[in-house]
Amino acid sequence: MFGAVSSRYQPLTLETMSAYVRSRPELAAVFNGDEPLETVEVGDGNLNLVFKVWAQADPQRTVVLKQALPYVRLVGDSWPLPTDRARIEAQALEIHGRLAPQHTPKVYFYDPDMYVIAMQNLNQHIIMRKGLIQGIRYPNFAEHIGLFMARTLSMTSDLVLDYRAKKMEVARFINPELCKITEDLIFTEPYRQHERNRYHPEIEPLVVALQADEPLRWEVAQLKEQFMTQAQSLVHGDLHTGSIMINQTDTVVIDPEFAFYGPMGFDVGAVIGNLLLNYAAQESRMADPDQRADFRRYLTDTIIQLWQVFVREFQPVWDQADVVNMPKAYQRDYMRRVLQDAAGFGACKMLRRVIGLAGVEDIRGIEDVHGKSVAASLAMNIATTMMKARHHITCIEEIVEIAVSSRSTV
Amino acid sequence: MFGAVSSRYQPLTLETMSAYVRSRPELAAVFNGDEPLETVEVGDGNLNLVFKVWAQADPQRTVVLKQALPYVRLVGDSWPLPTDRARIEAQALEIHGRLAPQHTPKVYFYDPDMYVIAMQNLNQHIIMRKGLIQGIRYPNFAEHIGLFMARTLSMTSDLVLDYRAKKMEVARFINPELCKITEDLIFTEPYRQHERNRYHPEIEPLVVALQADEPLRWEVAQLKEQFMTQAQSLVHGDLHTGSIMINQTDTVVIDPEFAFYGPMGFDVGAVIGNLLLNYAAQESRMADPDQRADFRRYLTDTIIQLWQVFVREFQPVWDQADVVNMPKAYQRDYMRRVLQDAAGFGACKMLRRVIGLAGVEDIRGIEDVHGKSVAASLAMNIATTMMKARHHITCIEEIVEIAVSSRSTV
Repeated sequence: MFGAVSSRYQPLTLETMSAYVRSRPELAAVFNGDEPLETVEVGDGNLNLVFKVWAQADPQRTVVLKQALPYVRLVGDSWPLPTDRARIEAQALEIHGRLAPQHTPKVYFYDPDMYVIAMQNLNQHIIMRKGLIQGIRYPNFAEHIGLFMARTLSMTSDLVLDYRAKKMEVARFINPELCKITEDLIFTEPYRQHERNRYHPEIEPLVVALQADEPLRWEVAQLKEQFMTQAQSLVHGDLHTGSIMINQTDTVVIDPEFAFYGPMGFDVGAVIGNLLLNYAAQESRMADPDQRADFRRYLTDTIIQLWQVFVREFQPVWDQADVVNMPKAYQRDYMRRVLQDAAGFGACKMLRRVIGLAGVEDIRGIEDVHGKSVAASLAMNIATTMMKARHHITCIEEIVEIAVSSRSTV
Repeated sequence: MFGAVSSRYQPLTLETMSAYVRSRPELAAVFNGDEPLETVEVGDGNLNLVFKVWAQADPQRTVVLKQALPYVRLVGDSWPLPTDRARIEAQALEIHGRLAPQHTPKVYFYDPDMYVIAMQNLNQHIIMRKGLIQGIRYPNFAEHIGLFMARTLSMTSDLVLDYRAKKMEVARFINPELCKITEDLIFTEPYRQHERNRYHPEIEPLVVALQADEPLRWEVAQLKEQFMTQAQSLVHGDLHTGSIMINQTDTVVIDPEFAFYGPMGFDVGAVIGNLLLNYAAQESRMADPDQRADFRRYLTDTIIQLWQVFVREFQPVWDQADVVNMPKAYQRDYMRRVLQDAAGFGACKMLRRVIGLAGVEDIRGIEDVHGKSVAASLAMNIATTMMKARHHITCIEEIVEIAVSSRSTV
């Protein structure tokens, strides 16, 4: 499952791309014979090579090729990372494409020797995080992401899959190396002194206080345990606003290379947590108070709505459930536990983005240094309150209320 | 992983046994050349062929051979069951033998073509259930089983295993067909009208009332979900008193063919629940009140002691744990959750033994029909109280207190 790199593997380059593309019959419908192609390497940040390829004669005939490298691109070959993650991503995209086709990029092929996925070039979309930073609203997002999560999470769980199919899927999506990144960066390092943590000196007293907060570390330890043991659903595993390509009409979820069988609340919490990071960032980004309040109202309404859609789109599964062995009280409790998990995991996602290695541009991109600390403090206060309140949360409005009533303390 | 039956497979018989035994070099240290051997088929109840083989000249030179059949022995080939369970059992025995050698049968070999495990003949031991029914006390049992569970459960969990090794073990011990038996017989059928349920008409009103108890079914649904999703440790999966071979000095745990990554509390609860089934059975088995009270005191003291040993033998793992990311409050909470899970799973184990397909001899073997119903009712009342109290249980004495204060209601 995590064997050596294929002997046929070699990293793609701008020079080898045309020949590689022409060798793949799956792309014959996109590109004609030996017509001239253009290629640019765009990268996706941390882990992979990403190229855009298009026909010189018609830039709308275009694909993206994503190739896994056997190490973390950002760090180099001192941090090896198995190319098996490309298989995981390709298989997760196949499942997402079946369960939520309108929100999944079209995949042309997966090449298991080169660890290459060829997929739709989402050139009509932008990364949602960048849009939110600019204060752009996406009126369909809540509806789309609520549906995407409800379908991908419910339909891969024991509630829908046959007992044998589910357990085979758990085995197929064992993803140790990528899970380990999450275990370290999200659940471990932010809560202790660690050389990979990154934060501005102005918030250091807040970080020191947070790391001294034993009840908080107890909650995080429980959530880490749950992440490592609860094989509830095939989760995306990295569903932040940087994994969402969006425009005013469409929403597409990309990059499920962290996919594994984990708690549903991990995905739901990732979306909510990242919206709340943007909410906190606007404290220092939007100068006009009315404009800021309006945009934040859009963000909190989105959080409420996406949960409502999630519950609504999950309901058909419960409508099929046998109420003798799964009584209604159990069904309601199940959804409440997903919400409580989302509050906990969302809080972890927020804190790692403020304290840990991989920050988010929403906050770290704020140019004014004090303003950045104000936003970071607000995010930390929202997250710690969510984390400690999570066992008592019964409805999505309570999460929003925590955000609205939190204040920066720098 | 669950492929077709090996082409070399054929069921062993009394006639083919000697030739098979002589063909295995691993047994050369037990049996001499072509000396005459004796064989008897003993069966293990439900799922397998089991033979005892010994040297005619010296019955102390002896082994047991256990062979998986491709169907449930009790039912026949209408209930197919993959022979892969023999691999699971052999691999679990290897791990148990490493972690708790004094409580695991010596294994000579596993034959992956014939699905045969050759192991120590525990001819100095009896099945613990039969001993308890006779009112025999085992003074070392609590110490032994507490140690066995602490070591096998802690050392196979994320608390000890490396992140990658643990996840590989989860995949290796995916055991769908045997888990499905548990899912159906323990968590589903007893809580609804089902043709496989078995109980005497005298307790039918109690069963009907129990099946109408929605809060109870809600608890069972949660426990079933936990059984199906929580990959906490390599559990034995069937750790009742019929899987324990015992005498006044030794305790040996056999038959881990149900092993998979599940909740620790499932094993702990199985032991406690089966001791409490015997506790309930003595209501109608031991006529003398003083003798009965004494023996029950032995059983409840054993329950308290085995949990104390479990906690004590688990402690070295916590002593190695990093208290920054696993603060003491988390460690205490972790053990409390195992205890609460044990109360819930133990209750499920008791109820299935009274209502469901596979009863226990402790209760079903009571000859007096009314006496049998009295014992069954007491077991049901202990179990339902445990199940509903489990979220509030903080120490083992509370479980014993529930047993002591419960009464039969027929």
